[in-house]
Amino acid sequence: RAQFKSQMPGLEIELAQLQRQIRNMNIPVILVFEGWDASGKSALINELIQPLDPRGFSVHNAHAANEEEAMRPFLWRFWTHTPERGRITVFNRSWYRRLLDDRVSGEVGKTELEHSFEDVRAFERQLAEDGNVIIKFFLHISKEEQKRRFRELKKDENTAWRVTKSDMKRHRQYQKYFRAADEMLARTDSEFAPWFVVEAHNQRYATLKIFRAVVQALRRRVRQEKIRKRKVRSSEDEMPVATSSILDQVDLSLTLGEKAYRRELKKKQKKLRDLEYRIYVARIPVVIVYEGWDAAGKGGNLRRLTEKLDPSGYEVVPVSAPDSAEKKHHYLWRFWRSMPKAGHITIFDRSWYGRVMVERVEGFCSELEWRRAYREIREMEQHMVNFGTVLVKLWLQIDPDEQLRRFRAREEDSDKRWKITDEDWRNRKKWKAYGVAVREMLRRTSTPLAPWTVVESNSKRHARIKSMDTVIRAIEARL
Amino acid sequence: RAQFKSQMPGLEIELAQLQRQIRNMNIPVILVFEGWDASGKSALINELIQPLDPRGFSVHNAHAANEEEAMRPFLWRFWTHTPERGRITVFNRSWYRRLLDDRVSGEVGKTELEHSFEDVRAFERQLAEDGNVIIKFFLHISKEEQKRRFRELKKDENTAWRVTKSDMKRHRQYQKYFRAADEMLARTDSEFAPWFVVEAHNQRYATLKIFRAVVQALRRRVRQEKIRKRKVRSSEDEMPVATSSILDQVDLSLTLGEKAYRRELKKKQKKLRDLEYRIYVARIPVVIVYEGWDAAGKGGNLRRLTEKLDPSGYEVVPVSAPDSAEKKHHYLWRFWRSMPKAGHITIFDRSWYGRVMVERVEGFCSELEWRRAYREIREMEQHMVNFGTVLVKLWLQIDPDEQLRRFRAREEDSDKRWKITDEDWRNRKKWKAYGVAVREMLRRTSTPLAPWTVVESNSKRHARIKSMDTVIRAIEARL
Repeated sequence: RAQFKSQMPGLEIELAQLQRQIRNMNIPVILVFEGWDASGKSALINELIQPLDPRGFSVHNAHAANEEEAMRPFLWRFWTHTPERGRITVFNRSWYRRLLDDRVSGEVGKTELEHSFEDVRAFERQLAEDGNVIIKFFLHISKEEQKRRFRELKKDENTAWRVTKSDMKRHRQYQKYFRAADEMLARTDSEFAPWFVVEAHNQRYATLKIFRAVVQALRRRVRQEKIRKRKVRSSEDEMPVATSSILDQVDLSLTLGEKAYRRELKKKQKKLRDLEYRIYVARIPVVIVYEGWDAAGKGGNLRRLTEKLDPSGYEVVPVSAPDSAEKKHHYLWRFWRSMPKAGHITIFDRSWYGRVMVERVEGFCSELEWRRAYREIREMEQHMVNFGTVLVKLWLQIDPDEQLRRFRAREEDSDKRWKITDEDWRNRKKWKAYGVAVREMLRRTSTPLAPWTVVESNSKRHARIKSMDTVIRAIEARL
Repeated sequence: RAQFKSQMPGLEIELAQLQRQIRNMNIPVILVFEGWDASGKSALINELIQPLDPRGFSVHNAHAANEEEAMRPFLWRFWTHTPERGRITVFNRSWYRRLLDDRVSGEVGKTELEHSFEDVRAFERQLAEDGNVIIKFFLHISKEEQKRRFRELKKDENTAWRVTKSDMKRHRQYQKYFRAADEMLARTDSEFAPWFVVEAHNQRYATLKIFRAVVQALRRRVRQEKIRKRKVRSSEDEMPVATSSILDQVDLSLTLGEKAYRRELKKKQKKLRDLEYRIYVARIPVVIVYEGWDAAGKGGNLRRLTEKLDPSGYEVVPVSAPDSAEKKHHYLWRFWRSMPKAGHITIFDRSWYGRVMVERVEGFCSELEWRRAYREIREMEQHMVNFGTVLVKLWLQIDPDEQLRRFRAREEDSDKRWKITDEDWRNRKKWKAYGVAVREMLRRTSTPLAPWTVVESNSKRHARIKSMDTVIRAIEARL
């Protein structure tokens, strides 16, 4: 107690100072609070935030997933709540619900659990590599102490309702939870996202321990930032670069007659509309990614695909350079926000692959960052597919001559002239550099569960029908 | 049919051009689609969006309110989905659900219905005055036609599931809906948000009519914008300005002894925590607004109020200048986004009142805009209170001498020096101009349902206890 009284004021002042420093340095901070029911998470969080400036933090209470959340991969609701640079987010319960509650309740099966462990590690690693400080607390009390606290709560009419039946059920299963928690802590402790187990029988002791851990971690990070020698982490992609590419086998002379095209178009559009309803009923989410050269015909292709769809079942997400709010987050954050819910289709007109193409070629991110991205993208797509998402990735391929023809045609048509800009001409000059990036991208991110389809697009008619066909097959394979 | 074939291509091209123009001119556009079940809303929306650039529009499907939405005032989910400047939002169903479906089903009672009519008109007027183009379509088919279409849908196994029991129920109540729709259309048609009733028996006819209406409205607006002679609308506040103010009766000498303060603080913090749980159980939302002079002690006051609360039940929203995303919307948009859900407390550290204080005094908005704001704010608060929200507005009053003392004290304390900036000194020089704004604000926005409480804050202890007391009374009055 004496220790508490003597140390706390100093820690509070230092924490407030550190908060101002991390804001100036644009460092995002994630604090996770997990632990037994009635271990005092809320009270301890409230202690922690007292000295903080409310403009710089928020508390996110992760209840059991609601309707909207349950219809998306389980990390979705956490990704979308990660702090922007310079801010602190305190998670009162977190993604560890999945590895603890949902596991013990049997909601998550064995294979799913293994996937989830991988997903969680990847999630934390990606955020840490993007600059996040992550500190995780597990508040521990014994079964006896928990029993005593429940009894206390029940005595007071204002708090009695807080002890629910499921609390009591979990209390009886304390041993089972204990074993699950033990494994969870062991398997998800890491240098970049360490666990602190805090004995929470005594609140003062726990408060002191938590403040110290946070202050130390932030202090260390601020110091590192000052000497600008952040250790280069080494989780980037190290797959050997092969020299061949699927692009080399593409037959760009493929074409389709006008009449056959009309017939197929009508048939496939009808088919797609039927499938749209069927995936809605079956609650299957669908993600379609359009990438390709400028003037490869993405827009027209995509429009044919959606022309006869019901707009309440699909959404087109056009992707351009990130805006100022998006830049304050991990580059995958904005794509996570757009993930379709189960039963819906989201079509990305350009996508997260910008990281390894335009951002790489134009130098908008560092080499370390785009190298890391291949793995991050594979992990995200894996997570989507594990959830049951149908993922179709289309690369619209044309050759440089065809692009030139189309650029010129656009310039000559007054209704289309706005579509072509100086930037298009500049990018064209970098065809070779982009070519290297495209080949590496196709190679590193074509996985058995999330393959790329190269669509020969010198003939727009052929390209449109093939795209629809690819989507139809992918969906049918899942129904 | 011939007319359709000859006119559509031209309309499509013009619509695409207009979309680019409204984007450049930063004009937001709202298109509402209402109408009978099976009247073809989705198909017509899809026709309409075909020529549009997907980067510039989104379709919002307003299903029956979900969990999150049902826990907030009914306009919340529409406010938060209004388009940013330069974008188009198509609402597939809208806030008119409230005036139609919820009315006929009896979910909305008579008084509530009248409130809702007012709310909807205020909502549309506020958006229109902020620059939105609003066009509303009601797709009409006869009862016989509806029956025929349901039969068609049922025949096909892929679409049969779309005809639900409630569709059939509404079909049987066609007459009742008809009368409700009739009144709704009559009472919510306005110059700034006109209804177009579209006979939807023939899809080509309906498509043509919708395209024409949209093209004409946008064309007109773009023309107005070009000649920069937007008619000054006149809905700003015209209440006579009285000369007295509650501020004149404030006794700033009120104070409180250290010992009494400690005792009261402890008692009231305990009380607040109990109330926090009780409003949670009773599903009552609480909004607390802190406004006041610089250095009036908002931060410390607010911290005492929240110190013992459970962080999962409250949130502090610090308000500073709007960021770039927020500037693209109506100024009330960002506050709508932060509205608490039922059972939760949101505390605004500064608020929407910035519009009639700092934005007015510093000239960040036009006189027309801040004059309009008094009414807009009253309307928003009215809407909140109608929903059952406990709304507490605290004005922390100090005198200029006290402010000076506090500024100086901050400068001398190295731990607090960061809190005081040149801007604070600049604002201080404008005490008089702010004083005029504050008085007018208190007078125009203190209403019986949403009164201001002036908190004498020369004594911080007195101010803290009075603030807590005000909140406690307001909540207890509702329980």
